[in-house]
Amino acid sequence: MRKGIATVSISGTLAAKLEAIAAAHFDSVELFDADVVASPCRPEDIARRCAELGLAIDLFQPLRDVVGLTPEVFPDRLRFARAKFELMERLGATRALLCSAVHPASVDDSQLTAEQLGIVGDVAAEHGFTLAYEALAWGTHVNRFHQTRAIVDLVDLPNVGVAVDTFHMLARGDGAEALAGLDGDRIAFVQIADAHRLSMDVLEWSRHHRCFPGQGALDVESVVGAAVEAGYRGPLSLEVFSDIVREANPRDTARDAMRSLLHLEEQLRRRWEQPSDGRTLAEGVDRPGRPRVELFDPPPAPQLPGVGHVEIAVTPGDPSMLQLFSRLGFTAVSPQGPDTDGIGRAARTVLRNGEATVVLDARSDLELRRSAAGQRPHVAAVAVDGDTDSALCARAHAFNLPVSETREPEGRVDATRSPAGVEVRLGSPCPRMDVPAPGRWGPLDHLGIAVDTDRSDAEVSFHRTLIGLRPGPVSEFIDPAGRLRSRVLEPEAGALRVVLNIAVHGAGHPTWIGVNQLAYACTDLLRQAESLAASGAPVLPVPDSYYDDLAARLDPPPELLARLRRLNVLYDRDERGGELLHLYTPLVGGRFYIELLERRGGYSGFGAANTPVRLASQAATPWL
Amino acid sequence: MRKGIATVSISGTLAAKLEAIAAAHFDSVELFDADVVASPCRPEDIARRCAELGLAIDLFQPLRDVVGLTPEVFPDRLRFARAKFELMERLGATRALLCSAVHPASVDDSQLTAEQLGIVGDVAAEHGFTLAYEALAWGTHVNRFHQTRAIVDLVDLPNVGVAVDTFHMLARGDGAEALAGLDGDRIAFVQIADAHRLSMDVLEWSRHHRCFPGQGALDVESVVGAAVEAGYRGPLSLEVFSDIVREANPRDTARDAMRSLLHLEEQLRRRWEQPSDGRTLAEGVDRPGRPRVELFDPPPAPQLPGVGHVEIAVTPGDPSMLQLFSRLGFTAVSPQGPDTDGIGRAARTVLRNGEATVVLDARSDLELRRSAAGQRPHVAAVAVDGDTDSALCARAHAFNLPVSETREPEGRVDATRSPAGVEVRLGSPCPRMDVPAPGRWGPLDHLGIAVDTDRSDAEVSFHRTLIGLRPGPVSEFIDPAGRLRSRVLEPEAGALRVVLNIAVHGAGHPTWIGVNQLAYACTDLLRQAESLAASGAPVLPVPDSYYDDLAARLDPPPELLARLRRLNVLYDRDERGGELLHLYTPLVGGRFYIELLERRGGYSGFGAANTPVRLASQAATPWL
Repeated sequence: MRKGIATVSISGTLAAKLEAIAAAHFDSVELFDADVVASPCRPEDIARRCAELGLAIDLFQPLRDVVGLTPEVFPDRLRFARAKFELMERLGATRALLCSAVHPASVDDSQLTAEQLGIVGDVAAEHGFTLAYEALAWGTHVNRFHQTRAIVDLVDLPNVGVAVDTFHMLARGDGAEALAGLDGDRIAFVQIADAHRLSMDVLEWSRHHRCFPGQGALDVESVVGAAVEAGYRGPLSLEVFSDIVREANPRDTARDAMRSLLHLEEQLRRRWEQPSDGRTLAEGVDRPGRPRVELFDPPPAPQLPGVGHVEIAVTPGDPSMLQLFSRLGFTAVSPQGPDTDGIGRAARTVLRNGEATVVLDARSDLELRRSAAGQRPHVAAVAVDGDTDSALCARAHAFNLPVSETREPEGRVDATRSPAGVEVRLGSPCPRMDVPAPGRWGPLDHLGIAVDTDRSDAEVSFHRTLIGLRPGPVSEFIDPAGRLRSRVLEPEAGALRVVLNIAVHGAGHPTWIGVNQLAYACTDLLRQAESLAASGAPVLPVPDSYYDDLAARLDPPPELLARLRRLNVLYDRDERGGELLHLYTPLVGGRFYIELLERRGGYSGFGAANTPVRLASQAATPWL
Repeated sequence: MRKGIATVSISGTLAAKLEAIAAAHFDSVELFDADVVASPCRPEDIARRCAELGLAIDLFQPLRDVVGLTPEVFPDRLRFARAKFELMERLGATRALLCSAVHPASVDDSQLTAEQLGIVGDVAAEHGFTLAYEALAWGTHVNRFHQTRAIVDLVDLPNVGVAVDTFHMLARGDGAEALAGLDGDRIAFVQIADAHRLSMDVLEWSRHHRCFPGQGALDVESVVGAAVEAGYRGPLSLEVFSDIVREANPRDTARDAMRSLLHLEEQLRRRWEQPSDGRTLAEGVDRPGRPRVELFDPPPAPQLPGVGHVEIAVTPGDPSMLQLFSRLGFTAVSPQGPDTDGIGRAARTVLRNGEATVVLDARSDLELRRSAAGQRPHVAAVAVDGDTDSALCARAHAFNLPVSETREPEGRVDATRSPAGVEVRLGSPCPRMDVPAPGRWGPLDHLGIAVDTDRSDAEVSFHRTLIGLRPGPVSEFIDPAGRLRSRVLEPEAGALRVVLNIAVHGAGHPTWIGVNQLAYACTDLLRQAESLAASGAPVLPVPDSYYDDLAARLDPPPELLARLRRLNVLYDRDERGGELLHLYTPLVGGRFYIELLERRGGYSGFGAANTPVRLASQAATPWL
């Protein structure tokens, strides 16, 4: 479908916004009145610039406090609307968003409001303009979708319809059902925004915490789906205000925004197309007499994504990482000997412990090959496995993610990079899986990625659109150096779980961005902990007071408590009796750490109750 | 009175927190359980460290979900409380904060809650401990002060009292009146926090947006005053959680915190002491049989503060600032000629326009003399006038603000620095006020100071405690590069108004911190604008669309609109018909700009409606 975005969704001057929007291949914009007012360009020049960039002006917005007012105030606001219609003429815009009143003189009178909207609609019709009437979630009297729908029915003019705004509707609890029985021709415009789930005043929520669809917690898909099912065939347009997009690079924001719309279309396609039943998109949603619905159709996301292996960039000649992993029970399975193939085979050590695979890469040109960044050691790449490996690269291309190709000892490697700079290898083979490995560690249970606050939504989008991981709620912790928020991303099925760690530190506490946690599963944690202790592996010390507090809180059996205490193992228990036993290493070079965990009885969390203790101990323990 | 602070109010490891708190001269701490649990030190070692630092442990907090629970759950939570009492024994703490339940098994039963609190109170008495029962603002059933007061009355044990927490009370609308008739002996502890006025879920509000008293919007003083009037003589203890303090340097936070308590005591003294009636502090608040109330007594703040002059550091040999101010109508009144006195008189040019005075300082050792920082030109210092000039320096000393002394041509200069680095000269004479100056500019209407988000509360504290300016509400604007929030600080009487500009920009948009706006008043703005146009002064261009929008919004008379448009003058009108006419210069070196304004008919705002246009135009206009 036609894709648009409001200029208010992007930071910068109006000129910079328009360029960024065009570069992300949008079809159209919603021009925000204040952007026009503050621009040094004349309206005619703005119109010309949009045309040069191939951007239609699908909407002028907003007309505030024009209808639903006392008869004393309405004439002056009608004068205001006429003045803005003149501006629209100069811009060449033909559709305006008119929102419900928040004016002190607003009235609770649908009949009067409809009369006034009819008058404004007639004036608009003289210009050939259409009005989309929107229920602001904080409108004084009109703040629910059914109210605007009823008023628009009363007005009954062909050029006056409702605006479907996913934020305003879902923030007030109105979902797809609010559109039931609505004729799509009555929908004058669809504005799309998601939002993080927050308990705050809806106006504050709206102005600061919207996000692009798929980044937040609202069921945007159902509302947009209902509008299209009702017959709406106009633009799908993003209107997102947030502190984050206001500060972000406009080009990055516009690209993220487009990806979120493409992914929304992919989800809508899955809703209407049922290949298992043989149902096509057309059979699912097209209606006689309406334009056909065209939706983005990328190669599918992997069905069972998991991590094949991780690569760690190490300093040539420095054996410390090899020693660390050896103490953790890993053994080298890579062929030894001279570098015979000219691509650095000997400088790459494949280490395995049961199902866990790590590649230490000491090649000095690694940064060049992989555009990996940062002081070594650091986790340079993550290889994603899944049953549709070969399609993942095509999927990345379809979503306009940059894909790089390099030749590695195990073959051609295609890779892309997340906003946090994590190199994700797309369906490349796991090295040396043919060699049987000793050890009892399982595969990666989850991967931790440290991200900047202002890029966390973009990181969510990346994992969601490329791999199909869905974000969960946000948890928050106190860190000695600041705050830590974390958000879990999980696939519908499959083993790849990603935990985004959004650290906000004060000045003087620089934060490492990228993979910061490798959490491996096992089925016998206490036995593993005993053998780590025996081999002198560096296990993060846990303060004695933690175990006293654990006894006070969860009262585990004394012999278990004593063993946990002796082995520096942390413990958690959920409401249904599921248990988590886990241990950590100290930070490696300040960059990442390794966790080993055992889930018992269906425990599905991440030991959040223990996170403050882990953070404090890592802050107090020298780096490896 | 005795002054304490909760360890949760400060960032860092527990060891770092305690050191910062001691360095700020607090008497005592509230030890936060989670800080003890995460510390690598044993409880006995924490107690020893506190003693070494001269800090008493006045409170252990919190005991969560111990009373107000179903009979099934209570025994396990009593076991939990016993375990924490053991910990308190090891810490040497004798007072615990016990808060109202948020547990799924909490019950709406005051009688049962009182029975359970009585049982816990008896166990506490065996240890010699006191309990302070607190109504969490989000407690499931107990969330108002009168509820805990009633329950504590039912318990009727000498070691069980209520906690007075200014945040929890004021967040629920309970002020000083909630303490009416309460015996001060029933108050087991007073916890003090202010908060910014926000419409959000109270738990979120509490965890992220508390601040030190005087920085926010709550009437903390009345509640604390009522507790002391009731006879409470225990510690005044700060418990502030916020995103800002979690990221800040702990030593800075602790110093700000102490200053806020000292200022609170000064305000309480003013409440109880009426020198005009001859009433002393003792007559105002002391009660027979209670310890005497001792309150901080600094030299008073200036009664009518204003800005005498500002100093701008300019590059030696660069005439551009002199040219700028000449075009703005300023004339040099400083003695010309060679530098005869060895202290750089000739390198300092005093410029005046009516009542506006600016000193251009080209001395190359200025940064050394003044610890002024930054690329020139920048506003290096602001001289505060007032009728108690001579006391201001002593006041700064009393609040532990660092005062520096230098010799300048006009005499000895004492100065201090705000957290944003603004040098404030304390009662130093305004240079060359003896020379009559042509021109019709008035004195400084307001001074804009750009501050970092995470230091804005500290900047408020500085101006409040030193000069007696009171903060107003926060306004917010969209800036092309991010967001701008601003907050006005005004004295009870006097002309010195400060607008804090809290800019939040994305990466790649570094923000200048310090004085960024010099706004001068005049009484004939249009005439001034004509003469600025005639002299070729650089006035910020205002886009044509602004005037079209102004016509649509406020519909000024056509001849006025035409004149505003021709002269690049901005306009605003308030609800009572008061008017603002104002104009700006472009940014000078990206650092600051000058505003000239005329207030008509009692207009008291700052033209907020025009701020987005000013920001966009300054972003698009080359710097001077």
